[in-house]
Amino acid sequence: MISRRDFLYRAAAVGGTGLMLNTMSAWGMGIASRTSEPPALSGSGKGRKVVILGAGLAGMTAAYELGKLGYEVRVLEARDFAGGRCQTARKGFALTELGGEEQRCRFDEGQYINHGPWRIPLHHQSTLHYTRLFEVPLEVMVNDNDHSIVYLENGGPLARQRLRPAQIKADMRGHVAELLAKSVKDNQLDQQLSVDDKRLLLDYLAHEGQLDAGDLRYKGRSGRGYAVNPGAGMTPGPGAASDPLGFKELLASRVGNVYSAVQDFPMQNTMFQPVGGMDRIAKAFEKRVGRHIRYRAEVQSLRHGENNVTVTYKDTASGKLQSVTADFCLCTIPLSVLRMVDTDFSPGFKAAIKQVAYAPVGKIGLQMKRRFWEEDDQIYGGHVLTDIKGINTISLPSSGWQKKKGVLLGYYNYQTAAIEVSAMTPQERADFALAAGEKIFPAYRESFDSAFSVAWHRVQYNLGGWADWNDDSRKNAYPKLLEGEGRVLLAGEHLSYLTGWQAGAIESAWQQLARIHERASA
Amino acid sequence: MISRRDFLYRAAAVGGTGLMLNTMSAWGMGIASRTSEPPALSGSGKGRKVVILGAGLAGMTAAYELGKLGYEVRVLEARDFAGGRCQTARKGFALTELGGEEQRCRFDEGQYINHGPWRIPLHHQSTLHYTRLFEVPLEVMVNDNDHSIVYLENGGPLARQRLRPAQIKADMRGHVAELLAKSVKDNQLDQQLSVDDKRLLLDYLAHEGQLDAGDLRYKGRSGRGYAVNPGAGMTPGPGAASDPLGFKELLASRVGNVYSAVQDFPMQNTMFQPVGGMDRIAKAFEKRVGRHIRYRAEVQSLRHGENNVTVTYKDTASGKLQSVTADFCLCTIPLSVLRMVDTDFSPGFKAAIKQVAYAPVGKIGLQMKRRFWEEDDQIYGGHVLTDIKGINTISLPSSGWQKKKGVLLGYYNYQTAAIEVSAMTPQERADFALAAGEKIFPAYRESFDSAFSVAWHRVQYNLGGWADWNDDSRKNAYPKLLEGEGRVLLAGEHLSYLTGWQAGAIESAWQQLARIHERASA
Repeated sequence: MISRRDFLYRAAAVGGTGLMLNTMSAWGMGIASRTSEPPALSGSGKGRKVVILGAGLAGMTAAYELGKLGYEVRVLEARDFAGGRCQTARKGFALTELGGEEQRCRFDEGQYINHGPWRIPLHHQSTLHYTRLFEVPLEVMVNDNDHSIVYLENGGPLARQRLRPAQIKADMRGHVAELLAKSVKDNQLDQQLSVDDKRLLLDYLAHEGQLDAGDLRYKGRSGRGYAVNPGAGMTPGPGAASDPLGFKELLASRVGNVYSAVQDFPMQNTMFQPVGGMDRIAKAFEKRVGRHIRYRAEVQSLRHGENNVTVTYKDTASGKLQSVTADFCLCTIPLSVLRMVDTDFSPGFKAAIKQVAYAPVGKIGLQMKRRFWEEDDQIYGGHVLTDIKGINTISLPSSGWQKKKGVLLGYYNYQTAAIEVSAMTPQERADFALAAGEKIFPAYRESFDSAFSVAWHRVQYNLGGWADWNDDSRKNAYPKLLEGEGRVLLAGEHLSYLTGWQAGAIESAWQQLARIHERASA
Repeated sequence: MISRRDFLYRAAAVGGTGLMLNTMSAWGMGIASRTSEPPALSGSGKGRKVVILGAGLAGMTAAYELGKLGYEVRVLEARDFAGGRCQTARKGFALTELGGEEQRCRFDEGQYINHGPWRIPLHHQSTLHYTRLFEVPLEVMVNDNDHSIVYLENGGPLARQRLRPAQIKADMRGHVAELLAKSVKDNQLDQQLSVDDKRLLLDYLAHEGQLDAGDLRYKGRSGRGYAVNPGAGMTPGPGAASDPLGFKELLASRVGNVYSAVQDFPMQNTMFQPVGGMDRIAKAFEKRVGRHIRYRAEVQSLRHGENNVTVTYKDTASGKLQSVTADFCLCTIPLSVLRMVDTDFSPGFKAAIKQVAYAPVGKIGLQMKRRFWEEDDQIYGGHVLTDIKGINTISLPSSGWQKKKGVLLGYYNYQTAAIEVSAMTPQERADFALAAGEKIFPAYRESFDSAFSVAWHRVQYNLGGWADWNDDSRKNAYPKLLEGEGRVLLAGEHLSYLTGWQAGAIESAWQQLARIHERASA
């Protein structure tokens, strides 16, 4: 049975995206393909056993779907809880990074940080399939807030100013629209544009840049914010307009490059988060497949033969070694960790595993005594973008609106910056975050309660935020790893083009469990 | 005591917005002024009585704040519930428009439509002051969703297509950036731009339009959506790119004019709504001032003298006439209704009241058996914009994500269209909305459960959606009405530049109650 997605993919291969779009249109699908459901599998897995390594979302997805088909599933999970990176730090949550001291989260009841995945794009229908099926309540995660702040240390003439994205967007687009309108009026584009096109383009530019209808100049607009907001009576009455930022200053600051009129595919103005924390998804899976999970089971070795796979694991509580033998193994262990497991994979397969780099990623949650970003600055969610080294973004919570306290994300760093910051102690990381934040928010440091940080590359069972593919590894290692070896198949975000997203883990699991079922049914 | 807002307003008057912005910056206020609190009044209103006409948000704000100061307040409300236009239609809610049949809402438990105000902008700090103070839980109202649909009947070459805003934005901006980049490269803008500016502008355009780094051409981008979304494994793997819409088609369709990179001031990507319905705000006020409200009290006449005001009202239950005499009267009755009340206002004041037009406004809520917009089209909240006559927008609910049923807003019409549609019976209005919606959503009609519609200009105690000022009435009537007459002052959204917004009602009440207190204290 061919899925709609497969059909479309083939249509694209044969007739280009035009044919595909026509097909989709004929199906009433508009621009989006519907890839929201687990593979529709028939038959039964009764009498077959699958050992699944890792109780993250990939592992639990496979356990859930294979379990429904009648397979005997056994999930080995090194931690004492399920979810993999789908974690939420709240009061009592403990983490000891490799070579680090133990952190125990001291947030107030009801406060938390999603220090792993933290947002669900609206078109990640696979993740949304399970939140719907398992009735995990969702709420909007404000991913783009034009009333937030951008703060650049290296912003040329606009350096170290608290700029609002709406200002920047309005003024950059306004000036650019004015410039292009001038070109059109001066007949400089007559080669490219017909008389009709010119008229329509001027009309569009006047709209897009909100140009003065008379001279097509940009003179500011309400959307950039007022100097004094409109209100009642005569004072403030209509409010007072604000002056646009100068075109040359904007250009020299390069701040226009921070935002784009269109976000990249996985990003949207609004995304979703589960009410109460991202781990509500993990808990929902765990409720359904928890009986198949062996916790504190650290995989030591894997041996596979023609008829079965044997996995030996250490019970980290007792230190005892135990084994599971199964017809198939679905391994969702991150490649960064798997490379260190004693396996009898072929040298080529081992080399493929080792070829994949993992991204150093750091995050810190800071509980604040007072939601000063809401109270003082009227910022309700979204990201404060900055070029302060090692920070990238200060992200404001999309829950607990108008309450007293809140936990914000104090930094979200990658690569070199993540490695540098993660070398600090938890206390030093908090200090580092506070020193940056107080440049932007006067009340930052005085409002600080407590912190919880993670450096995923230093977390024992992850050793990285996500698989960090490059062209070479995608070309050479990826197909090999997708294939698996013998009766061992791999799944996880790393085996998708949705790297680092929960949807990647789920969709990869869907693909690989379908292959297991196909082979088991053969 | 001068408020910050007053000071800023004067700074602007003296030194222009530059001085004002500097002042604000010195106060750490960034671009937004803080106008979020009721007037700080000292002294006591003990022994003074104020009769307030109307228990909408303006009336209840005044009752709450004056009550705190010790005034004896009496609120006369014609309806049998408080809130004015701040209403929510849910199971059992009844409405009989003038000359119309009774509608009784038949939505399922938990389903509702905010048929009056339905969104709270993030900078309406006055409204947010009370939601915070009264602990009214808020949730995000998705006001802008790039994954929604725009559908134009008169869209030229793109007519009657289900276009996604993200497509349109990406392609319009991409083509426009490419065009301007070409002008810059061809040295057509050398008079306006220095060599440095040119380099920086090209850099910005390449970013903004996501142009090919080599030839600076626009060739599509991920943010416009894929033909096949990326996923796991090799199929779909990286997904399949989608082809941009042509520049000439876009221009000819004029669909680029539907959206702007920057929204007008009161609009943002995300806004707020109270969890459970907008009337939660009304209920929160009512809980605190309800004991002062006389319901079913329809104002018949108003007489004011040097020392007091007497209001006569009819108890609509018994039909009996009663009177209240007070030191002051704060009248929040819409001008459209007030003009018909028997008053002894001066001819000039009466003329001012009559000069203000009220906007015909219609809305319809349609309960759908299935959230097809989420399930079939992955649209989670936001607006479907259309030029179908009388519809304007089909707005999808921002609550109950992934649940079974939902109530969407089937149209939101104004002026002539509102008058035309409101002439229909409730059943005909529902049919009208369904006929439009099914052009865009195949499952629209088959999913329909029941409807509830309102035409505000036909609602007895409103006779319009909001005050519809023009330059003439703002100039001549507005100052007079703000002044009030004798011991009668007016308040409401109509006496603000936030017309039609709850914040206008609240801020107007703040101003007028401060004036009452000033005079009472004199």
